[in-house]
Amino acid sequence: MSVPNAFLDPASIAVVGATDDRAKWGYWLATGALRGAHRRTVWLVNRQARPLFGHPSHPSLDALPEAPELVVLCVPAQQVKPVVAQALARGTRALLAITAGLGADEAELDLMLRAAGARLLGPNSLGLYDAGADLQLAWGTFTPGPLAIVSQSGQLGLEIATLAARSGLGVSRFYSVGNQLGVTAADLLEALVEDERTTTVALYLEGFTEGPRVMAALRALRRAGKPTLVLSTGASDGSRRLARSHTGSLTSAVDVVEAACRTAGALRVATVRDLVGTARYLSSVAPPRGRRLAIVSDSGGQGGLAADVAASFGLSTPVFSPELRRKLGDLLPVGAALANPVDLAGAGEADLTVYAAVSEVIAASGEADAIVLSGYFGCYGEDAPVLVEAEHAVVDRLGHLAGGDVPLVVHSMSDRSAAVERMARRRLPAYAAIESALGALAHAASLGPGREPAVANQAASRPATGYWAARETLAALGIPVPGAVRVGDAAEVAGQFARLRAPVVLKAGWLEHKSEHGGIRAGLADADAVSLAFEEMSARLGPGEYVLEEQDTRAGVVEMLVGARRDRDFGPTITVGFGGVEAELWRDARVELAPVDRATALAMLDALRCRPLLAGWRGKPAVDVGALADVVVAVSEALARDPGLTDLEINPIRVAAGGVLAVDALIVHEATTEKEQPCPR
Amino acid sequence: MSVPNAFLDPASIAVVGATDDRAKWGYWLATGALRGAHRRTVWLVNRQARPLFGHPSHPSLDALPEAPELVVLCVPAQQVKPVVAQALARGTRALLAITAGLGADEAELDLMLRAAGARLLGPNSLGLYDAGADLQLAWGTFTPGPLAIVSQSGQLGLEIATLAARSGLGVSRFYSVGNQLGVTAADLLEALVEDERTTTVALYLEGFTEGPRVMAALRALRRAGKPTLVLSTGASDGSRRLARSHTGSLTSAVDVVEAACRTAGALRVATVRDLVGTARYLSSVAPPRGRRLAIVSDSGGQGGLAADVAASFGLSTPVFSPELRRKLGDLLPVGAALANPVDLAGAGEADLTVYAAVSEVIAASGEADAIVLSGYFGCYGEDAPVLVEAEHAVVDRLGHLAGGDVPLVVHSMSDRSAAVERMARRRLPAYAAIESALGALAHAASLGPGREPAVANQAASRPATGYWAARETLAALGIPVPGAVRVGDAAEVAGQFARLRAPVVLKAGWLEHKSEHGGIRAGLADADAVSLAFEEMSARLGPGEYVLEEQDTRAGVVEMLVGARRDRDFGPTITVGFGGVEAELWRDARVELAPVDRATALAMLDALRCRPLLAGWRGKPAVDVGALADVVVAVSEALARDPGLTDLEINPIRVAAGGVLAVDALIVHEATTEKEQPCPR
Repeated sequence: MSVPNAFLDPASIAVVGATDDRAKWGYWLATGALRGAHRRTVWLVNRQARPLFGHPSHPSLDALPEAPELVVLCVPAQQVKPVVAQALARGTRALLAITAGLGADEAELDLMLRAAGARLLGPNSLGLYDAGADLQLAWGTFTPGPLAIVSQSGQLGLEIATLAARSGLGVSRFYSVGNQLGVTAADLLEALVEDERTTTVALYLEGFTEGPRVMAALRALRRAGKPTLVLSTGASDGSRRLARSHTGSLTSAVDVVEAACRTAGALRVATVRDLVGTARYLSSVAPPRGRRLAIVSDSGGQGGLAADVAASFGLSTPVFSPELRRKLGDLLPVGAALANPVDLAGAGEADLTVYAAVSEVIAASGEADAIVLSGYFGCYGEDAPVLVEAEHAVVDRLGHLAGGDVPLVVHSMSDRSAAVERMARRRLPAYAAIESALGALAHAASLGPGREPAVANQAASRPATGYWAARETLAALGIPVPGAVRVGDAAEVAGQFARLRAPVVLKAGWLEHKSEHGGIRAGLADADAVSLAFEEMSARLGPGEYVLEEQDTRAGVVEMLVGARRDRDFGPTITVGFGGVEAELWRDARVELAPVDRATALAMLDALRCRPLLAGWRGKPAVDVGALADVVVAVSEALARDPGLTDLEINPIRVAAGGVLAVDALIVHEATTEKEQPCPR
Repeated sequence: MSVPNAFLDPASIAVVGATDDRAKWGYWLATGALRGAHRRTVWLVNRQARPLFGHPSHPSLDALPEAPELVVLCVPAQQVKPVVAQALARGTRALLAITAGLGADEAELDLMLRAAGARLLGPNSLGLYDAGADLQLAWGTFTPGPLAIVSQSGQLGLEIATLAARSGLGVSRFYSVGNQLGVTAADLLEALVEDERTTTVALYLEGFTEGPRVMAALRALRRAGKPTLVLSTGASDGSRRLARSHTGSLTSAVDVVEAACRTAGALRVATVRDLVGTARYLSSVAPPRGRRLAIVSDSGGQGGLAADVAASFGLSTPVFSPELRRKLGDLLPVGAALANPVDLAGAGEADLTVYAAVSEVIAASGEADAIVLSGYFGCYGEDAPVLVEAEHAVVDRLGHLAGGDVPLVVHSMSDRSAAVERMARRRLPAYAAIESALGALAHAASLGPGREPAVANQAASRPATGYWAARETLAALGIPVPGAVRVGDAAEVAGQFARLRAPVVLKAGWLEHKSEHGGIRAGLADADAVSLAFEEMSARLGPGEYVLEEQDTRAGVVEMLVGARRDRDFGPTITVGFGGVEAELWRDARVELAPVDRATALAMLDALRCRPLLAGWRGKPAVDVGALADVVVAVSEALARDPGLTDLEINPIRVAAGGVLAVDALIVHEATTEKEQPCPR
């Protein structure tokens, strides 16, 4: 739903629970509201009706001359319902509720608000702030700037704002959405698309019940040139347990949130410091076009450390060409390192313009996608005032350079010199630690354009379960499966075996982890062997749908897995990874929202650690990666198309030079989920 | 060599090249030296002999009334030799050289110094500082405190000092060792053992040519209760390239440096910020006894994020027992999360003492090895001055608690409130980011006591090469190998085969990567098959030492690798990891300095990602981990015992429930290294 103007730039506000006790919320809300008194009416309401901060106050909402457009509640929990009732009765249709711990009252409140067509931000909100509207109704202090913050945790939202301000990045809008009773994170994100002050968005969410709507908003923000950095929890047992006990909400799997962010052109980050460092980068310069980093330092130690940190973030430090090295050599003394990292070997200290000249030559070479200066630059003028002007001139040259095709970041040992402050004004992101500089750069390099989710045809298939049904589903999708027959009892075995090419595999088709439960026997070469195996297995496992299948005897096979699963919040997802019985040991898999096209499927494969196995490992031939990508696409489309299908997993899919063969698979329909659960990945 | 007192607390200093130009080194060294003028004679030397800072100066060392105990050189490169000659002639035996770029003069200088029995710190040093001796002869400014810094990179050393000071941690001694011509890092580390002000040591080294001596010094420091944090590069191609071009030194493999640090009871860290955060922890409280973390926050968001960050550092957040939850429930309101993370649910805001009470109950429970408070604590008094006293009282209670068995760290959203400053004084380490707080805690938890390197018998074996020689070596170590015979030509094959249990494997014994080069044929069940295989292989690969070996047909086998290698700097090392042809893909291995005892070998196995495979994976039986550990011990001792052995690698060693079998191995003696190189790991 759109956000009423009463939350963006209300004509009048009443703060109920206003006080001059600085340890109370009512103090922060009242003083904040009064800051905007030059452009809107502000009423303070408290029971004693005693003057506050030189302003009159009123004993209740009823005592006000007219209905406030926005009513702010910082009153004890038991007073919330009566005050809301009063506000609604007067005609107010927008409310902000700081109060937490409403318990069962919350549902009742929801009904009251809906009946009146009113909207509430909160309860359990830390407040809101809008730099452009001089609107501050929150705990804490805010510095104006280009970062918008939407947070389900007030404290994390405030920490983002605090750390951002501490590093020179201000806030355009701040919304602590609390329990999202009437105004949700998705509503507020949508409203940010049009906000002129916002260039970057920070989002913290604990649950993604509005996942697709949130992601649509992030996509719209990205299109508007305002990338979103998403902070979320759920990567550990501890945080999942807390989310359940804390808000009752289930966290989505982190890899699915990351996949959803990629689709939306947003980026998940792991900590507040990461988020702020990356937001500072994005609000200054464009993301790099690739991951090739040039390192420039006047210290071999700093340069080496930067290279190690870069590698840990997946940034490469490629060797410069002889031509580029020659050009750099012309600028630098004997003893300088020219191959990347560049070690100025004292030349920077001798002549500050060398930093700019070297950076310009590298930028013009096309051999790096980004440059980092690491070390003492930014400290020269601080230690030797005679160098201030020279250092500023270099900052200006670098700032000009960073605005071009090759962005530039600075790790400076000074965190507050005049030169470092000038860097911020010249849109040259500077950081006090090399891992912050390169972390921000690496995050920015990972920020893709997003992709439009393909609209899939909706056609529910007949619910089915077991291996035979999975095989039929795969075959219908054009995915190769081995020749196979079903055998019901011992009498059929020999006759059915004769229809297949030996050797064959006997499988207990209804079991999920067949090998673990003795439900698979391979290498059966003749009718006697098959009969014996069937007798033994059926005696042990009882009757069921047994399958005899031609064994894949091809050489040079890599076992992979392809699985599609419906996520509670984000819908269809597709996974591809290292397969076989060790799949869960190495956990080398990549997830995307489904469906995916072939290019995305190939990119997923490229991101796997086991990718070299597919390219031909240790003398083996390369396998048919294209055929595997086709399977990924087909499986992703199958789940996206069929709303009744919740899980379709092939593990392993055997990939050889001659193509793929799906030799075990699992299918789960909505109707069958209670009976059968897929294995956790 | 011991460090002469002239570098620690000289009676007199001459600064040659003193100047009042703040952009020059001579300014920093002269002003620094003058700070100690109340306790020692300081002479300033410059050509013009004009007064500086109100002090007279002298045209040369010859003009001084007596020989300075320490001469500091900040003169152009070409003047270094003459000035050193002058100093030595006058009788000075200790010199500090800032000047860099001496080139070939350095070797000559070395001879001059040795001939005179003099010692030089540098050249290319950024200087030294000693808080206890009022000795500051360095660029930069220093704050006194308990951290000693020894750095091969002046700039990284200075960054450590700067970041430490910025976060409230001062420096006891600072040594920029530069090119280590006469005084080395090892010398200075040894001298720190006795330094009363030092409680923690920071070391940056690019090369470890004095590796064993450095590690012996770190072990002595550890025994003296002064743990060392080691920063080093060499984790990326870029940093290795730079080290070669920059100092000509080869970096040691990072995993070997880490192993060496473990042995010495020191800890490798990856960045300056990591180092400083951990040093702050170690200079305040004792390392935790384990990795179980209790998280306390007044925000569900902060608590959840802390749990995710903890998990990423290998800290667990175990669920509290019902009894502990009941006790916490007595302190907290309905809606609080009690299971860990603990969410105070507003109770902290309502009553600050709850932070202390909750922490005390957790500490007394024995259910956590450390506690982190994350979020708003440290900000209350800053935002509401009425709360200052109450917050300080809680800081004092927590500081008392942290001095006990369960250390406590704080992540506070404020970085400079009075409460946060009080935490530092109460030895309660506080951090402005949760990843810094938990990173420091995790590093501290990884800091072991070190272990004494076993003294191995030295007995050189006969140099040998090839698979047969490797098998003989293994057999002599008591490591099981399959039955095997050598075959020289086709005529022998059938007769030799008859001596073995079929099926057998034919191997080209002299090849390193046999499977890649078609030098291995398995599953040979009869004499005809063996003869045919021999004909084919020998026609292709030519004559050589072919081996026929009984094939390991046991079920439930896990393929591992065990390898020992002599490191250039640190000597014998031992590696165990996931083996077979995919070993280099997953790179799941653990290195320690050799020899290791059985407990260490078992701990190495426990640290592997593939450890679950050994415990019985997906229904398979557990394998004989004890037998594998015995092999690790035996191989580690073999290399430690035999100085001529440079490499002994078994890959794979096949481990089943019934024991181990080494089925491929490589041996390299010093004499053979030029012919044959082991594969890179």
